[in-house]
Amino acid sequence: MTFPVVGMVGGGQLARMTHEAGIPLGIRFKLLSDTPQDSAAQVVHDVVVGDYRDLETLRAFARGCDVITFDHEHVPTEHLRALEADGIPVRPGPDALVHAQDKGVMRARLDALGIPCPRHRIVRDAQDVAAFAEEGAGFPVVLKTVRGGYDGKGVWVVDTVEEAEEPFRAGVPVLAEEKVDYVRELAANVVRSPHGQAVAYPVVESRQVNGVCDTVIAPAPGLDPALALEAEEMALTIAKELGVVGHLAVELFQTRDGRILVNELAMRPHNSGHWSMDGAITSQFANHVRAVLDLPLGDPRPRAPWTVMVNVLGGDFPDMYSAYLHCMARDPQLKIHMYGKDVKPGRKVGHVNTYGDDLDDVLERARHAAGYLRGTITE
Amino acid sequence: MTFPVVGMVGGGQLARMTHEAGIPLGIRFKLLSDTPQDSAAQVVHDVVVGDYRDLETLRAFARGCDVITFDHEHVPTEHLRALEADGIPVRPGPDALVHAQDKGVMRARLDALGIPCPRHRIVRDAQDVAAFAEEGAGFPVVLKTVRGGYDGKGVWVVDTVEEAEEPFRAGVPVLAEEKVDYVRELAANVVRSPHGQAVAYPVVESRQVNGVCDTVIAPAPGLDPALALEAEEMALTIAKELGVVGHLAVELFQTRDGRILVNELAMRPHNSGHWSMDGAITSQFANHVRAVLDLPLGDPRPRAPWTVMVNVLGGDFPDMYSAYLHCMARDPQLKIHMYGKDVKPGRKVGHVNTYGDDLDDVLERARHAAGYLRGTITE
Repeated sequence: MTFPVVGMVGGGQLARMTHEAGIPLGIRFKLLSDTPQDSAAQVVHDVVVGDYRDLETLRAFARGCDVITFDHEHVPTEHLRALEADGIPVRPGPDALVHAQDKGVMRARLDALGIPCPRHRIVRDAQDVAAFAEEGAGFPVVLKTVRGGYDGKGVWVVDTVEEAEEPFRAGVPVLAEEKVDYVRELAANVVRSPHGQAVAYPVVESRQVNGVCDTVIAPAPGLDPALALEAEEMALTIAKELGVVGHLAVELFQTRDGRILVNELAMRPHNSGHWSMDGAITSQFANHVRAVLDLPLGDPRPRAPWTVMVNVLGGDFPDMYSAYLHCMARDPQLKIHMYGKDVKPGRKVGHVNTYGDDLDDVLERARHAAGYLRGTITE
Repeated sequence: MTFPVVGMVGGGQLARMTHEAGIPLGIRFKLLSDTPQDSAAQVVHDVVVGDYRDLETLRAFARGCDVITFDHEHVPTEHLRALEADGIPVRPGPDALVHAQDKGVMRARLDALGIPCPRHRIVRDAQDVAAFAEEGAGFPVVLKTVRGGYDGKGVWVVDTVEEAEEPFRAGVPVLAEEKVDYVRELAANVVRSPHGQAVAYPVVESRQVNGVCDTVIAPAPGLDPALALEAEEMALTIAKELGVVGHLAVELFQTRDGRILVNELAMRPHNSGHWSMDGAITSQFANHVRAVLDLPLGDPRPRAPWTVMVNVLGGDFPDMYSAYLHCMARDPQLKIHMYGKDVKPGRKVGHVNTYGDDLDDVLERARHAAGYLRGTITE
């Protein structure tokens, strides 16, 4: 059969779960992984171990692939352009991906599109931050490195001009943003294919703990349908206008005064979409694969009234196997997704999904399982 | 993490789908495959290419595995005993597996357990067949090689004593069975773990075309609940009494006079359970992995009122990709499972699952997709 080869750069859990979703699709899956121990490298047949920052490594990997896609957003833009010049489709392409790589470029583009964002400004030093606060945003101010931050890393919340010195020490560009008075965080996940078909997953509520995604509830409870529609349309507009191919996660703030503002963009399968593996007709991973191959997209609608995802973080005890056994025994409906990673405190090593008719019950089951696996719940 | 290693012997689609189910479980999966091109060998990281009939190959493969299980039932019993003597858990074990390998042993054991079967007798020649027919079974008689048959191979339906010569030409033991007057075929799928936990999937209807499974409907439409319960209990009894570990498929005849009789046993994930991948809370593959590792079993209940599986057989045209694209476009809810196999006429190369509230609609969608992929439906 002439089924295509998808090459994925990056061997983390997103690649692992994309491979899982690609198996029933009958595609071939090739992986470029930093190490042979990476999460996806353990389960994929065709693994190349190499450094994605090295163009020749990327080029050699891309030979024999019908399309290149990503587990993360760290591949240098110029390398992506070189692959395209070699004739390899790169999805999402560099012109789209830069908006997920560079928060300054992203904010400027969203402003131009009229998409609501927190007040923001590129700042060069603490005095710039003070001026930004004074001109309306006020303290605290959120400072973010323009490139490279994730899961709360590269982010500072500063209350004073003195505290604002720290982010500039590394000498990298910094974006200042107002600290939004939000009631909760939402995420609008959409998938778009090269010839413009797009699907929107239900808008979810995403709860962070210490800057790391902890719980996702699909759909977001009690969300005004008009606001949900606005969020979906916003994500579809961003996907279209930025030329995104594949999965796009738009992280949102829902403000106290009833608006939604864009927090971050991610152009790959995203933690806020993991619920879809067990909760949607077609998962984000399956739709990402379908999109990058320009196949017709699958139905993103939920299969159950409520689906809850809770991340499993590493705790103090390195062996989760007996806790895992306990969780299976306690809840035969629990869906456990382990990433094959060594347990380190605070590291995402898996997630659990639960679904059902009763949100309280679904939430309790997911939280209990994740807490038990981490070791913070012991009964 | 100290998650265990499951070694699977055989690289067919059952191994491929077992690996897919094992990824979220976080286990390590090793494969012993006949060739590097086998269905599962394309998608599994740790592949050993070798001959399962060679004991030293098996022994080398089993080193470093926490348990050995199977994609097929063809591993010689003495090899399984040798692995057990080496201290490797073999699941299902040889004492159970022989009942799926040898139809004579199976019939004798089910008779002893009082499980209803078609009339049967081991026969040595055509005269034996004639005597068997005369003593009550009547012609036509079904003749089966005691070992090695599958998908209609190694099975003859003979109307006369003259026709009964053929099966004996190979010089292998033959079992004669009455041709049962059945209204349909059913399958009762159960999974059992080493310490005796067992779960039963809903009894399904299985429709064969030319001796090959074509369509499975879960649950079996219009089945008397008492008969469904009887079938489930029968399968659970067989699993327990034969000491099966892992998935057990009990293929059944539903007779015109309202009885159920055991046709065949399979001790591995089975075509009649493929619907569970999209239609049950826990699939047969996930539960097989959980069982062979003696983990608590997952919930086997259906997620939708009706799930239909139709096998995709190879047609005359080797490239299915454009048909596959068409099927995705026509039905965004369709679940396609391709096995990565070259298309040959009549070969199982994949299956489709559909689910929903309306059986006619669910059946039509699955049949259309499978027919279109095969090339027998062109619109």
